[in-house]
Amino acid sequence: MKHVPQPRRRLTTPSMTSSLSFLLAAKHTELSELQRLAQSIALARSTAALVHELQRERGLSSLWVGQASMGQAPPESDLRQQTRCTDRWVAQWLHESAALIAAPSAHGARLLSRVAYALQGLEALALLRSRVAAMALGTQGLSADYARLIASLLAVVFEAADSASAPELLRPLVALFNLMQGKEWAGQERAAGAALLASAQAQAHEQAHLIDLIEAQQRCLEVFESFASAALLPFWQERQRAQPLVERSRMRRLLLQTPAGGALEPAQSRVWFACCSQCMDEMRPVEDQLTQSLVAQASACMAQVQAEIGQLEQRQHQAGSAANGANGASETQRSSAFFEAARPTLQPTPQGLAGGLEKSVLDLVQEQGQRLQAAAAELETLRASLNERKLIERAKGLLMAHQQLDEPTAHKALRELAMNQNKRMVDVAEAVLSMSRLLAPRR
Amino acid sequence: MKHVPQPRRRLTTPSMTSSLSFLLAAKHTELSELQRLAQSIALARSTAALVHELQRERGLSSLWVGQASMGQAPPESDLRQQTRCTDRWVAQWLHESAALIAAPSAHGARLLSRVAYALQGLEALALLRSRVAAMALGTQGLSADYARLIASLLAVVFEAADSASAPELLRPLVALFNLMQGKEWAGQERAAGAALLASAQAQAHEQAHLIDLIEAQQRCLEVFESFASAALLPFWQERQRAQPLVERSRMRRLLLQTPAGGALEPAQSRVWFACCSQCMDEMRPVEDQLTQSLVAQASACMAQVQAEIGQLEQRQHQAGSAANGANGASETQRSSAFFEAARPTLQPTPQGLAGGLEKSVLDLVQEQGQRLQAAAAELETLRASLNERKLIERAKGLLMAHQQLDEPTAHKALRELAMNQNKRMVDVAEAVLSMSRLLAPRR
Repeated sequence: MKHVPQPRRRLTTPSMTSSLSFLLAAKHTELSELQRLAQSIALARSTAALVHELQRERGLSSLWVGQASMGQAPPESDLRQQTRCTDRWVAQWLHESAALIAAPSAHGARLLSRVAYALQGLEALALLRSRVAAMALGTQGLSADYARLIASLLAVVFEAADSASAPELLRPLVALFNLMQGKEWAGQERAAGAALLASAQAQAHEQAHLIDLIEAQQRCLEVFESFASAALLPFWQERQRAQPLVERSRMRRLLLQTPAGGALEPAQSRVWFACCSQCMDEMRPVEDQLTQSLVAQASACMAQVQAEIGQLEQRQHQAGSAANGANGASETQRSSAFFEAARPTLQPTPQGLAGGLEKSVLDLVQEQGQRLQAAAAELETLRASLNERKLIERAKGLLMAHQQLDEPTAHKALRELAMNQNKRMVDVAEAVLSMSRLLAPRR
Repeated sequence: MKHVPQPRRRLTTPSMTSSLSFLLAAKHTELSELQRLAQSIALARSTAALVHELQRERGLSSLWVGQASMGQAPPESDLRQQTRCTDRWVAQWLHESAALIAAPSAHGARLLSRVAYALQGLEALALLRSRVAAMALGTQGLSADYARLIASLLAVVFEAADSASAPELLRPLVALFNLMQGKEWAGQERAAGAALLASAQAQAHEQAHLIDLIEAQQRCLEVFESFASAALLPFWQERQRAQPLVERSRMRRLLLQTPAGGALEPAQSRVWFACCSQCMDEMRPVEDQLTQSLVAQASACMAQVQAEIGQLEQRQHQAGSAANGANGASETQRSSAFFEAARPTLQPTPQGLAGGLEKSVLDLVQEQGQRLQAAAAELETLRASLNERKLIERAKGLLMAHQQLDEPTAHKALRELAMNQNKRMVDVAEAVLSMSRLLAPRR
């Protein structure tokens, strides 16, 4: 048998140690991904607070412009106080976002790119305010500009969710994004309803727009509810029964059931505005509780991975000192396990890698592989809920590029396609994208 | 108007610079992801070479065991020489894989976990060889053990492809994985056909297995062809017309068209083995050319991103020295661009960021965002071709966990389900997974 090379120790012993090194490296990767994610979560938390202040500022600016245009004395102090408050959060946001680039190449290019765009929006905020002060913008125009700025901030939270690598954190991030987006639709509903009331007459086109906003809002909040933790839901549901929501429902009926051409009472605009603002304020503590628990969950995840790293390091240390044949298993026994076809599947251990000392390296390797595969599968399922938005954005981008449309026109084109065909926006977006695949040149 | 805060320079000027910093940080992220990917590509290249040697070693071991069991003088020198050759590639592979953990947390946890598992397989290679030498394994047993080891190495290449963040590199990586997997099916076909011939009698079950292997092989090679570059295809097609392939087709017909129970000529086993081995050897230069061009493409991508980083740095430097109002655009003009709804979509510039000096930061930010979004969309489309395998693996994992099955039994269960229902494996896998979602507890 001398023609077959003898088992060579050179290949075996180092590789056993190496397997542990790779397990450890994988754990370190998980840890640094969690650290990145914790930073994104901190930024998402600031973003939620900043967006809320911008929504308030938009509301107050809009009231101020509305009243000033009617020759009434504008309520100076409220708006001045609000802009100061917004600025504090802008500063906080700038601080949090700067942390993302402190460590080079730590974050995904897409997230950084979204932050760069939001920064452009915040830079333009000063101009927007001066235009408001100069009454160079109507309530509609200023609402649209604030909406654009807020959209650039929401995109940061969306990207933070989309790049999350831990399913247990992706779930609440999806909930957060949808709550924030739902709240923003509520803000746009506030503006649209106020404009309709101010016009003193029900108009079919404006009513249809209002319905769109209400439906978009409800879809987001349904997603939020299905992703929110069991601990958060009762808090949310309690606030959903608050008086302003009842009041808003009543006024929504008034706005939508008045036949086109029928008279509306402009004085009601303030009532509408107040109850819509209160509804948005009711959402804010839920957002705050959600981001707080996200921060706590991220810490807990990091602590767990850190503990697992400690156990693996201990194991590696022991493997190093015990040399071969550790744990009573001969090298042959350990090697043959790799080829055992009838090897029973490992039961998941409640303590994770804690029971590591009785397990072979192969057991640990297989456990880690199975766990990572399961996490990847879960992430993919969770991300499906983010896909609706992505498809719509992508279809819009395609229309913008190929048809030379600007963003609002592309959005409107998609919305009208959907309305005419009685389909959902996402279905129309999918149709647009599938056509593009047919048209794209094959490489 | 004194109640509205004046535009505050504190918020504007630094953020304009910051937008550039984020653009730069995003580019640095792209670069370091490409560096990671280049390392994975180097490992994939070594893996392809190592797998080829293991396939040859499996073939020679199998011939040796077959002949030794018939009392014939085994051809010592060939196998001895082959194991030495394999070992050189094992050493190379260990070297390449060690580079992955030299930089902490650089690579994805899943890739590292796959490498850890493949290392366990390579550790067990010595044992496998000693069992072959001791004739403790039949040709079927040793082929299955080598197949298991090779599968652990293929999984590394699969993961390298799945974690690729650049569409232009994912495309050839998908081609590479499918070529390698197709070649491995060819290796298993060689073993199955040889076993069938050695048994001297056509058996329906073995013939069905052979058909499975041929079909799996063809599917992989079709994917390979649709992802291979236009430069590689003629080289591939030329080799597909080689004599061994004609010979194998002839022998495939013989093996499959002999009615069950009919006689086969065991002496033909060597002819079959030789032409199958030659077919696999014909694939190797294509694999080699593909991995070579992958390495070159990765370098080209890195050089391009590096050049873009240089341009952005120059731009940042100029922005710093020119202070405000650079490029003739006032701050107000620059800020107002953010709110311009009718802003035309940017035409992609052929020189990428090169034309950066005439463009505003907002233009650059929007271009980068659009490019990253387009890349993400393309990656998603390309990855769909990897999903078939993932779904099957996932369904197997589920069966293993829930039904306490080992891997080959789970595979067989899926295959039989597919055969009984006249469906593809992937459709059955999808059905299994969708049932599991129904059964899984809602959180």
